[in-house]
Amino acid sequence: MPVPAPNLYPAFNTIRLSHVELHVTDLDASRAFYVDMLGLQVTHQDSEMLTLRAMEERGHHCLVLRRADAPAATAVVFKVWSEADLDHAADWLARQGRPVSWVDRPFQGRTLASSDPHGLPIEFYHEMERLPPIHQQYALYHGVRPLRIDHFNCFSPDVDASVAFWNDMGFRVTEYTEDAETKKLWAAWMHRKGGVHDMAFTNGLGPRLHHIAFWTAHPMNIIDLLDLMSTTGYVGSIERGPGRHGISNAFFLYIRDPDGHRTEIYASDYQTVDPDHEPIHWDLKDPQRQTLWGAPAPRSWFEEGTLFTGLAPQPSRLAAQPIVAP
Amino acid sequence: MPVPAPNLYPAFNTIRLSHVELHVTDLDASRAFYVDMLGLQVTHQDSEMLTLRAMEERGHHCLVLRRADAPAATAVVFKVWSEADLDHAADWLARQGRPVSWVDRPFQGRTLASSDPHGLPIEFYHEMERLPPIHQQYALYHGVRPLRIDHFNCFSPDVDASVAFWNDMGFRVTEYTEDAETKKLWAAWMHRKGGVHDMAFTNGLGPRLHHIAFWTAHPMNIIDLLDLMSTTGYVGSIERGPGRHGISNAFFLYIRDPDGHRTEIYASDYQTVDPDHEPIHWDLKDPQRQTLWGAPAPRSWFEEGTLFTGLAPQPSRLAAQPIVAP
Amino acid sequence: MPVPAPNLYPAFNTIRLSHVELHVTDLDASRAFYVDMLGLQVTHQDSEMLTLRAMEERGHHCLVLRRADAPAATAVVFKVWSEADLDHAADWLARQGRPVSWVDRPFQGRTLASSDPHGLPIEFYHEMERLPPIHQQYALYHGVRPLRIDHFNCFSPDVDASVAFWNDMGFRVTEYTEDAETKKLWAAWMHRKGGVHDMAFTNGLGPRLHHIAFWTAHPMNIIDLLDLMSTTGYVGSIERGPGRHGISNAFFLYIRDPDGHRTEIYASDYQTVDPDHEPIHWDLKDPQRQTLWGAPAPRSWFEEGTLFTGLAPQPSRLAAQPIVAP
Amino acid sequence: MPVPAPNLYPAFNTIRLSHVELHVTDLDASRAFYVDMLGLQVTHQDSEMLTLRAMEERGHHCLVLRRADAPAATAVVFKVWSEADLDHAADWLARQGRPVSWVDRPFQGRTLASSDPHGLPIEFYHEMERLPPIHQQYALYHGVRPLRIDHFNCFSPDVDASVAFWNDMGFRVTEYTEDAETKKLWAAWMHRKGGVHDMAFTNGLGPRLHHIAFWTAHPMNIIDLLDLMSTTGYVGSIERGPGRHGISNAFFLYIRDPDGHRTEIYASDYQTVDPDHEPIHWDLKDPQRQTLWGAPAPRSWFEEGTLFTGLAPQPSRLAAQPIVAP
Repeated sequence: MPVPAPNLYPAFNTIRLSHVELHVTDLDASRAFYVDMLGLQVTHQDSEMLTLRAMEERGHHCLVLRRADAPAATAVVFKVWSEADLDHAADWLARQGRPVSWVDRPFQGRTLASSDPHGLPIEFYHEMERLPPIHQQYALYHGVRPLRIDHFNCFSPDVDASVAFWNDMGFRVTEYTEDAETKKLWAAWMHRKGGVHDMAFTNGLGPRLHHIAFWTAHPMNIIDLLDLMSTTGYVGSIERGPGRHGISNAFFLYIRDPDGHRTEIYASDYQTVDPDHEPIHWDLKDPQRQTLWGAPAPRSWFEEGTLFTGLAPQPSRLAAQPIVAP
Repeated sequence: MPVPAPNLYPAFNTIRLSHVELHVTDLDASRAFYVDMLGLQVTHQDSEMLTLRAMEERGHHCLVLRRADAPAATAVVFKVWSEADLDHAADWLARQGRPVSWVDRPFQGRTLASSDPHGLPIEFYHEMERLPPIHQQYALYHGVRPLRIDHFNCFSPDVDASVAFWNDMGFRVTEYTEDAETKKLWAAWMHRKGGVHDMAFTNGLGPRLHHIAFWTAHPMNIIDLLDLMSTTGYVGSIERGPGRHGISNAFFLYIRDPDGHRTEIYASDYQTVDPDHEPIHWDLKDPQRQTLWGAPAPRSWFEEGTLFTGLAPQPSRLAAQPIVAP
Repeated sequence: MPVPAPNLYPAFNTIRLSHVELHVTDLDASRAFYVDMLGLQVTHQDSEMLTLRAMEERGHHCLVLRRADAPAATAVVFKVWSEADLDHAADWLARQGRPVSWVDRPFQGRTLASSDPHGLPIEFYHEMERLPPIHQQYALYHGVRPLRIDHFNCFSPDVDASVAFWNDMGFRVTEYTEDAETKKLWAAWMHRKGGVHDMAFTNGLGPRLHHIAFWTAHPMNIIDLLDLMSTTGYVGSIERGPGRHGISNAFFLYIRDPDGHRTEIYASDYQTVDPDHEPIHWDLKDPQRQTLWGAPAPRSWFEEGTLFTGLAPQPSRLAAQPIVAP
Repeated sequence: MPVPAPNLYPAFNTIRLSHVELHVTDLDASRAFYVDMLGLQVTHQDSEMLTLRAMEERGHHCLVLRRADAPAATAVVFKVWSEADLDHAADWLARQGRPVSWVDRPFQGRTLASSDPHGLPIEFYHEMERLPPIHQQYALYHGVRPLRIDHFNCFSPDVDASVAFWNDMGFRVTEYTEDAETKKLWAAWMHRKGGVHDMAFTNGLGPRLHHIAFWTAHPMNIIDLLDLMSTTGYVGSIERGPGRHGISNAFFLYIRDPDGHRTEIYASDYQTVDPDHEPIHWDLKDPQRQTLWGAPAPRSWFEEGTLFTGLAPQPSRLAAQPIVAP
């Protein structure tokens, strides 16, 4: 079994992914992309920062866009069950030799900053400002009608090592791609909240952020988005899809924001709450793992990603992937 | 606040609803309804019993149909996190003065049988036989393309009392209907798995099973089912819908099986995993709570339900509901 | 055969329905309904009149809203193949003893005004101002995403007589409802453009306009509209549906504008261009003819309609319909 | 204006495309593809031939599959308004110097065989055996739920010449692609029945049949088909799509049958019945004309097609197309 047994009693209880902060070079262009076109809702804006939420979210934000000189991501952020879980997390991370600090973040309570063994910056909090429900204010829905943030996906230079660490933190593997010859993991999807993933790792120069993903209710929303993007100046921002993933079984589309940050629109994976839920194995040579319908991903999708601030990515320890792409 | 504060550290960890056993008077007719028409998959059949699963489920069954002289339900069944949780559950239920016994159930491990304060029969298990994934065998999909069991809904003669007990067991209220004059709960939706509900209670002669519900990916599947039922002899089995619930925001349809057991088809509620997720309050006088689009439910929907075996239901302690129905 | 043989070589060539003019008492309220909410596009507005088109139409308008003291319709309007067809129409109508006059209409060329034997006002034109395509300007799509006007439906006091006259004009019956006992037509659907209908007649106090209908691409647009109407103050404007018609097989919704004028949203009937296309017979006693899924229409739907200006409707010559409605 | 003025009074009245006969090398494999997988209905089968219809068609067939040693198409076939139109067609075609003969075809009345100036074999009939409606027998729907045949598309070595001839026959251009430098037509879409096309021509080695197309009600049916094909051994039969065409605005998918014959699944173009409907011009250099969303077509789509029996195709008179394909 190439993936570790799940840790059903981790040292602290992470509920779900929460949000990411992205550095963007033009807040107006980013707002046009994420708000006017994609359909996220603005929950705060000042001259330096824009915070957004999707339609069914009650937490203050799922995306922070901060004005900067160069595109980057600062950290992937998770919500934990309680304030006590934050302390348990700090203890556990320190015991693993990871750096631990407490940081101030707007609209949040106490926030713990740390990183995984490759230096991927991660933050945890319990309390965030709560907002009233808007999921039945249908006049607000537009664009792809995004409902909630669904997951992060990061490049890792050593997916086996990443999975080992995140598994210890209680993230459970739902699907994985293995190189049949080397028995090394090529990619893995790991969850806390009961879907296919909160966090995925894919082999490559890393840590880098490959993409964030938003959940929408059904594929027609993605088709509507494609029509909209194609006729409002965003045709060049469509990178891959639409299609059905073999892995996760979700209907997907990948788009790139004005700074190149990648967003996936994602519809309908499946429920994974059982502790005895069995991971699904995929062979690296099976092209249907990526797109069930067989269409290859473009080269950019395999190679490009967002750097984390202050972190130099390391080359993958594996040979280059057999890309079957244009 | 008419609903109790959530119990974030219950005595035992219930993961999700699992299944229900229904007594049916004609197994062939039931199979025609649930399998040939609705699209559930058979996982076992003998002369006395038929077990079914939906397309993304790996547990052996989400519905047990057993041949009997009269329609009934035997128990609503839940899966817990571990074998130890079963023992914790037995201890806690005994301390509440509830009956506790260990029973044999096919395809399951150790199973705990008990009941709630109104006598509603509940069972818990940790281990059930697991089956290989079929969610990407698209040739098997038909009918409404059911993906998984989503929830139970039961009549309760005293919803406040039901909610108090189930809240103690760790079920968290997501939405509720209150009678503005009496401040009594009329109905409540409670979850464990991170959606709007695993279990709901609605005021009325009870305990009785109001309905079970299956999740489907999108509303078009429900429209396809309506077309199919209408032209294959099942037009009389359509009871209510299609429509959008105010409560839960799900797209719904209610149908009745050959014995009158009610099934809801349910698409797209929302994620509720946050421990600080705020319940939504609805006024009993607001007709949009039931159907956002305003169409009333028929009288049968308010009054009819499935008896539990060996349990005489009690009248509601509240006055009759102001039904605005045909 | 209760419907006449089609007239395959009528005296003039009507292409399709074009538009209707409605009198409305508050242009702002009508604009809010048809433009802001429903999604039609404004092509002209002055203090007295608002003209609208749907997304794929190139003709200047499919709906004229004119300020007036009381709600009414002035005429149902059709486009003919050529200017010569207008003259042929004038000749033929005069020979039938119908009044004939030439009238001025904004944005149109020569326009012929006449009426059918019950006095239902009809107009014909060949030339209307043409507008550039907007069907791929997806940023303009909203509301129900209306694509084109699809049909008119009018009450008639004698459907057999209406069908006989319109059949002579070349309108071909696609479906009809017959009273099995009297062998009288209860309703009939008649087309020119190759769908189920451009014009339908239903028994009742008439002539009155029962509804106009807009075509949308798929049922999800109608579900989106219902969500929008329900949460923007229009829940009371939803009259009937959603559902599938037995007759026409279309997915439908009926709504009422601020003056009570009825609009149907209509998705996906079928192609009827063959000259030997056989009409489908429905029995008046079959409730699935109206709603395949069995739900009855409300009483208002059977009884209420829009008066034509200056025309007193006559009572039906048939007994009252066996309404199975709330 | 690079396209001729429409001939509004052609010598004979063609209603619509009707069907094509394809030679296939394995009737069982073809039946598995078109019937079991795609969802067409069998209307006749013997050892040599299989005839099929789509769900809303009343004519006996829209596709004839005939056992043969090599894949081919025999003719594209059209239905005319009356028997007299067949005689008018024979006269007109003879006057153009085209060969004319009367042939026997199963399930059809009198059938006229001829060809266009490039030798593309065309047939006309008025009468075909009619079958009862099945469009509301929803238990029969499966696969992509095909509703009707929509159009043919053929390679032509000289699209200007093809358009001139078919325009004379009354086919009206709705959209066209022009080479901005040479002012030559690259492709054109021409209709009789009131949609974007019954017949299209695209530049290339021809005459060859590029594809036939079936209409389905909405994009979700195409997504369902992709899921089905991908998991039942047909992933290699998916050639291009899904996507939105710029030209026609339809949602599309191209698949290849076991003999390589290409089928398009096509959802939702627009109505074109007006005689003054203006053709839409596209520049050959605009990649969005083919796929609004920007994805290129594969090389096979530009180059491969079905030969007509006994006809040697001629090379295109234009330079090779600037394919932007994988």
